[in-house]
Amino acid sequence: MSFEVGFEHVNKNLVFKVEDYEEKVRKINEFLEYERTNPNNYIGWLHYASHINHDLVESIKKQAKYFRENYDTLVVCGIGGSYLGARAVIEAVNGLMPQDKFKVLYFGQTLDPNYTSQMLAYLKHKNFCVVCISKSGTTTETSIAFRLLKDLLEKKHGKKGAADAIACVTSIGKGALYKMAQKEGYSVFELPVNIGGRYSVITPVGLLPIACAGIDIDRFIAGFVRAEEKFGSPELSQNPAYQYAAEQNLLYNNGYNIELLVTYEPRLQALAEWYKQLYDESNGKDRKGLLVMSSTFTTDLHSLGQFIQDGTKDLFETVLLFDNPKIDVVIPWNDDDSDELNYIANKKLSYVNKKASEGTISAHANDGNVPNIIIEIDTLDEYKFGEFLYFSMRACAMAGYLLNVNPFNQPGVEIYKKNMFKLLGKKGY
Amino acid sequence: MSFEVGFEHVNKNLVFKVEDYEEKVRKINEFLEYERTNPNNYIGWLHYASHINHDLVESIKKQAKYFRENYDTLVVCGIGGSYLGARAVIEAVNGLMPQDKFKVLYFGQTLDPNYTSQMLAYLKHKNFCVVCISKSGTTTETSIAFRLLKDLLEKKHGKKGAADAIACVTSIGKGALYKMAQKEGYSVFELPVNIGGRYSVITPVGLLPIACAGIDIDRFIAGFVRAEEKFGSPELSQNPAYQYAAEQNLLYNNGYNIELLVTYEPRLQALAEWYKQLYDESNGKDRKGLLVMSSTFTTDLHSLGQFIQDGTKDLFETVLLFDNPKIDVVIPWNDDDSDELNYIANKKLSYVNKKASEGTISAHANDGNVPNIIIEIDTLDEYKFGEFLYFSMRACAMAGYLLNVNPFNQPGVEIYKKNMFKLLGKKGY
Repeated sequence: MSFEVGFEHVNKNLVFKVEDYEEKVRKINEFLEYERTNPNNYIGWLHYASHINHDLVESIKKQAKYFRENYDTLVVCGIGGSYLGARAVIEAVNGLMPQDKFKVLYFGQTLDPNYTSQMLAYLKHKNFCVVCISKSGTTTETSIAFRLLKDLLEKKHGKKGAADAIACVTSIGKGALYKMAQKEGYSVFELPVNIGGRYSVITPVGLLPIACAGIDIDRFIAGFVRAEEKFGSPELSQNPAYQYAAEQNLLYNNGYNIELLVTYEPRLQALAEWYKQLYDESNGKDRKGLLVMSSTFTTDLHSLGQFIQDGTKDLFETVLLFDNPKIDVVIPWNDDDSDELNYIANKKLSYVNKKASEGTISAHANDGNVPNIIIEIDTLDEYKFGEFLYFSMRACAMAGYLLNVNPFNQPGVEIYKKNMFKLLGKKGY
Repeated sequence: MSFEVGFEHVNKNLVFKVEDYEEKVRKINEFLEYERTNPNNYIGWLHYASHINHDLVESIKKQAKYFRENYDTLVVCGIGGSYLGARAVIEAVNGLMPQDKFKVLYFGQTLDPNYTSQMLAYLKHKNFCVVCISKSGTTTETSIAFRLLKDLLEKKHGKKGAADAIACVTSIGKGALYKMAQKEGYSVFELPVNIGGRYSVITPVGLLPIACAGIDIDRFIAGFVRAEEKFGSPELSQNPAYQYAAEQNLLYNNGYNIELLVTYEPRLQALAEWYKQLYDESNGKDRKGLLVMSSTFTTDLHSLGQFIQDGTKDLFETVLLFDNPKIDVVIPWNDDDSDELNYIANKKLSYVNKKASEGTISAHANDGNVPNIIIEIDTLDEYKFGEFLYFSMRACAMAGYLLNVNPFNQPGVEIYKKNMFKLLGKKGY
C-alpha cells in the first residue's frame, strides 16, 4: 500500500483492457531499453540512477557543503527543465516556509524587469552563491540573469571571490557556459548529453541544488533506483506506470483531452509545474497530446471547482495524495463555538484534509461524472518523491509513444525564439 | 492607446460580426443595469465604485494606517473571492519582493498541515495583525486558520491586545464572524450582501488589505469609476469589454473551449488566479463554459510552449501586456562575450521582454494557428489595474449571459463541501 494507483471510472467503456495495450506496451518498453544508450534518443535517464558514479555524488555533496557553510543564500539560475525538477523536490521536502537559515531562490526564468530588479535589490544585501544550469549557456533568460549575478558577485568579492561562489551544470567540452567556467575557474558538473532537460532531475541538474538545500540525495537516488525496478516491467499488468499511461491514452481517445493534476498541498505546486512541463512538452505535438494543467485543492475548489463539477465534460483528474505528514496541526477547542468548528476540535488538520479529498473525489467522480485517477503514496520524503518522479517519467515516455509522438524532442519551442532573435537583431536570424 | 483590445485572427470566420451580437448585448446590458439593485442578483458591483461611501473609504484608510504603524506583518485570512482580488492588486502593484518593511501574507486557503504549521512557526516571531474576510464566518479553511491565528494572538497579547490586531470584513448583522467580532470587539467592515466574492475586490474585501499594503485606494477606486464609464456602453461597437466577451463566445462556439490568459510578468500570477476564479466559477456550469487557465511567459514557453505551438488546436490565448514599467534593468556589456549577449547589451530588459511577446504572438498566431486576443495597457499602476479588473468583470458577466448561464451563482461548489461535512460528522449532514 505504499504506492498505489487507483481508478474511479465514470463508465465501463473507460476502463482500459490489458489485452488492448499489453503488446504495444511491451514493444515500446523494448524500444526504450534497447535505444537508451543511443545518444540521439535522449533516453539516458532510464537507468541513470542505478549506474550513477559514486565520485560524482560525493563531489556534489562536497560542493553543497561548501556552499551551505560559506553563504546564506543560493540562487538557482535556470529555466524549464534546468530548474523545475530541483524546485519540485526542494519545496516538497522542505516546505514553502522552511526554518533553514540557508535560503534557496530561483532566478533566470523571466525577462520581466520588475522581478529582476527586485531580486537584484534583495541579493545586494545577501551573502549569496549561484548554481547556473544551462546546456548551452546561451538561453536568453538564464544567461541575462547569470550575467547580472556575475556582475554583482564580482563587484562584491572581486573575480576570484565570485568564482568561489559559482558552480555550473552544463555539457562538458563544448558550449558557452562550459568555456566560461573553464576560463573563470568555476566548478563544473556534467549535464549528460543524452538526457533532455525535463528528464534530468536525477542528474547534477537536480542533485546539486537539492543537496545544497540540505536534502539527502543518497535517499533521493535510492528512490529512483527502487522505481527503476518497480516501474520497469515490460508487462502492463505488472507495471503501474504503464497502466497509468494506458488509462491516459484511453481517456484521451475518448474525448478527455485535458488532464488536471490535483494536489492537496501548496508545497506541491512546483511539482505540478515540473509535471506539466514533462507531459506538455513531451506529448503536445503533431496536433496531438493531452493538455496537462494543475490545481491545488482545497484552495482551487473555490475557483476552478465549479467548472470541474458542472462545466464542459472534457477533463479528467489525477489526484496525488501523500499520507502521514511529518508535521501536523491540531485544531484547538473553543468554548465559544461561534465559528461552529468544535465538531472537529482536537482533530488533526491532516485528517480534515484527507476527508476533504475523499469528499471531493466522490463529488467529482460520482456526481460530476469526471474520471478520477488516484495516486496514493504513504509518505512524502526524498525517497518516495524520487519514486514518484521516476514513475511520472516512465509513464510519460510510454504515453508519448502510445500517442505516436516522440516524447523526447520539442521542435515547437524554437519558433518563438527565432522570431524574438530576429526582432532583437541577433546575427544570423 | 492607453487601453487597447486587439485580435489576431487565424481565420476570417472567427471574427465576430457586430450585427450578430449587438442586439443580444444591448438586452443583456439592460438587464444588468435594471437588475443591479435586486439583492438576489448579485450585481451590486456594477456601480459600486461610483457610489462608494466616502466615510467608509476614510475608515478603511484609518484602519490601514493603524495596522501599518503598529505591526510589521499583515495576515490576510480568506479563501477564493475573499482574498484573490486583494492579492492580485497587491502583488501587481508592489511586486513579489517589495522592499516595504510591512509584509503581507495570505492564510486560510488550505487544509494542508505542512503549510499551516510552517506559517504559524513563522508568525510566532512576528508582530502581526489580521484581516479576516468571510461572508458567513464558517468557511472551513478560513475559520480553522482564523481560530489558530486568534489563539496565537491571544497568547501573545491577551484578549484585548488580540482584538486590536484583528479587523473583519463580513456581512453586517448576521453570520458567525459578525457575531464574534461584536462580542470580541474587532473592527468590522461591510461585505455587501448583493455582491458575490469574485466581484468584490472593489468593496472592503479588496480595499482594506490593499490599503494596508500601502497602495493608494483612492486611485484604485478612480480606475474603477473611469472603467464604469469606459466599459458601460450598451453598444457593442463602443464597448471593448463586450467586444472581448463576444469574441470569447464566438471562439467557444467554434471549438475553442480553452482560454489561456498569458502574462509576461511573474507578479501577475495572482491576477491570473483571480481571473480564473472569475471566469471558471461564473461561466463553468450547465455542462458549458470556457475553461480558463493561465501561464506566465516567457517562463512557461519552456514547458507549455510546445503544446501551444504544435499540440491539440482547441485553445486560444488572451495576452495581457502592461507597457512602460516603472523600474527597469539594463543588460550589462561584457568584453568577453562568451554568452553571446552583447548584441542586446545596454538595452533595457523591458525591451527584450516586449520583443519576446511580439515574437511569441507571431509564432503562436501565424505559425501555430492559435487565435490571440491582445489587451495592451500603457502602464501598470493602481488606476489602470482597477480599470482592467472592472473590464474583466463586465466582460465576464456578459460572457455568462451570452452562454445562457447565470454568471453570479456557483451551485457546483457546494457538493464537495456537503460530502466533506458528512465524512467529518458535522451535524445536519
